[in-house]
Amino acid sequence: AEIVVLPGDGIGPEVTHAAVQVLRAVARRHGHAFAFTQCLIGGAAIDATGQALPEDTLQRCREADAVLLGAVGGPKWSDPKAPVRPEQGLLAIRKALGLYANLRPVKPHPAAMGASPIKPHLLTGVDLVVVRELTGGVYFGQKTRTGSGASDLCEYTIEEIERVVRRACHLARTRRGHVVSVDKANVLETSRLWREVATRVAGSEFPDVTLEHQLVDSMAMHLLARPRDYDVIVTENMFGDILTDEASMLAGSLGLLPSASLGEGRVGLYEPIHGSAPDIAGRGIANPYAAILSAALLLRHSLGLEDEAGAIELAVSHALDAGTFTADLAAGDTAVGTRAATEAVLEHLL
Amino acid sequence: AEIVVLPGDGIGPEVTHAAVQVLRAVARRHGHAFAFTQCLIGGAAIDATGQALPEDTLQRCREADAVLLGAVGGPKWSDPKAPVRPEQGLLAIRKALGLYANLRPVKPHPAAMGASPIKPHLLTGVDLVVVRELTGGVYFGQKTRTGSGASDLCEYTIEEIERVVRRACHLARTRRGHVVSVDKANVLETSRLWREVATRVAGSEFPDVTLEHQLVDSMAMHLLARPRDYDVIVTENMFGDILTDEASMLAGSLGLLPSASLGEGRVGLYEPIHGSAPDIAGRGIANPYAAILSAALLLRHSLGLEDEAGAIELAVSHALDAGTFTADLAAGDTAVGTRAATEAVLEHLL
Ligand SMILES: CC(C)[C@H](C(=O)O)[C@@H](O)C(=O)O
Ligand SMILES: CC(C)[C@H](C(=O)O)[C@@H](O)C(=O)O
Repeated sequence: AEIVVLPGDGIGPEVTHAAVQVLRAVARRHGHAFAFTQCLIGGAAIDATGQALPEDTLQRCREADAVLLGAVGGPKWSDPKAPVRPEQGLLAIRKALGLYANLRPVKPHPAAMGASPIKPHLLTGVDLVVVRELTGGVYFGQKTRTGSGASDLCEYTIEEIERVVRRACHLARTRRGHVVSVDKANVLETSRLWREVATRVAGSEFPDVTLEHQLVDSMAMHLLARPRDYDVIVTENMFGDILTDEASMLAGSLGLLPSASLGEGRVGLYEPIHGSAPDIAGRGIANPYAAILSAALLLRHSLGLEDEAGAIELAVSHALDAGTFTADLAAGDTAVGTRAATEAVLEHLL
Repeated sequence: AEIVVLPGDGIGPEVTHAAVQVLRAVARRHGHAFAFTQCLIGGAAIDATGQALPEDTLQRCREADAVLLGAVGGPKWSDPKAPVRPEQGLLAIRKALGLYANLRPVKPHPAAMGASPIKPHLLTGVDLVVVRELTGGVYFGQKTRTGSGASDLCEYTIEEIERVVRRACHLARTRRGHVVSVDKANVLETSRLWREVATRVAGSEFPDVTLEHQLVDSMAMHLLARPRDYDVIVTENMFGDILTDEASMLAGSLGLLPSASLGEGRVGLYEPIHGSAPDIAGRGIANPYAAILSAALLLRHSLGLEDEAGAIELAVSHALDAGTFTADLAAGDTAVGTRAATEAVLEHLL
């Protein structure tokens, strides 16, 4: 299989390197041939080519079986007046590859619960997936700037809502059969449409799945107060961005959370949900688990290698059980670096 | 002073009744004359007049010194196809009175921390205020619906941003002098404008206040991981809606959180941040503390009665110290009703 690696900026290169090491080990053990091609995106691409998503990168991604991405952005490129910003590369690749469904699973690991701000008794048994719409909404609507103000347009078509709700319902079928759709239907027209379409799609195509609606403000509370009650949560792009970062606190650290961005095509994009963390970049202390778990999602969703995906997840889980914590999970002295954490995963790989 | 009371729907009438009792007690004790006029808003107004904000209500609010509101909405009026919805009354009164700054203080009470999903050691010393922009953004931009989709426009003018940032900076001066401005400047044009304007206003007019910027997704995490680090948080309407409901979890219950909506004029609107809770309406078990604390904010911000405001806040604090918990704060048996909670506040009033 052809895998394009987009290290990006900040800690991106360090964590994707760790994930590739794990993928190579899996390939050796299970007799697969994975070919890795590294390409530019984000700030690194701007420096080299002037563009956040060079045409060559996009072309190679289109031809690949899967894409593994680190993170983009950093202070170097964050002047608001800059003509090109690293984040545009990320938004452009999501859009160009049609990756409308961003799956963000949250399943707190017992050993990492200590690092969560949430009380442990609320976290036991939490196992949810947020399905975030990723190629629509206010992220991609028209932006304007005048002398006196600015605007962003939030748009959704019926089709865009249908396909992501369908994806969420299919996923729920493989799990506990429960979908919560999140919107702000008491204020937004796009949300009223979202609610109508979600109700129709779930009701007519997925009679075996239960659908519930929540307002986004209430959801921001319930996610903390009763996280165990959720199975699949489906929502639009901006709400999903906020709620998944909030949900990451259930897992103790952003450094543990992978994501899969999927479309109708075969190629998927896999990335940790954390950012480029420029403050710790290059110091060998970044948490590689989220990138490694993203590699597991890649094996599962793009290559159909469920056993291999499970083996990686188990190895990470064992590394955590053994107390192999990076600085985001452990206090000062006991923390290990990126390399030691990666090696712990490799050791536990069956 | 003339106070208009807008009970609204669900538990609104019960909690505003409690708050008015407390205001009457304060008036007696401190020799003030408060005149209360009750008007319709929300679902109750739709039932009686067909409109969510009748002209008569608005007129009386304009002539009053302050407005105390309960909550609006409920299943009875929530058909998405209904021509008028209760929430429109709330949005219309905010807009018509020019109440662009919504102050939502969060200061967890030690006795209520047990009800919070957050670990207690993170909550000690938390004392923050969110200043939410309340009359702009995607709430009030143009909404469209076509055969194939829908849209909502998010708009901000420079002036709208300036005035709310100014309000936040003034507030910070009376506190710890620290403002965090929350946006999504890596994606939204309105957020880039927001960041520019906030930087300019704080830098040129408030050299004594420190300003920091946070992306809304990061803020959703930091609010839980290190809530003590925040003093004043200023943000646009939609982000403020989500973040304040999230922040309410720090306080253990939405039932403890008041809010003040202020404009350039004298009249302010005071309301609990909880909703109409139709499931428990009319049962005498609603938590009245948030409405009572909203009455305290009314005395402070619209009537300039700081001592009286402080007396109410202290009385609520003592009622909580004494373990007077409504069902949202206590498990089953030990919970008291709205009336007993209100009486506990009245007893502790100095
Ligand atoms: C970097 C940014 C544009 C991006 C987003 O908002 O989608 C990030 O926060 C994410 O969640 O992947
Ligand atoms: C009822 C609703 C329109 C309102 C809002 O979103 O502003 C409420 O959630 C609030 O926060 O006051």
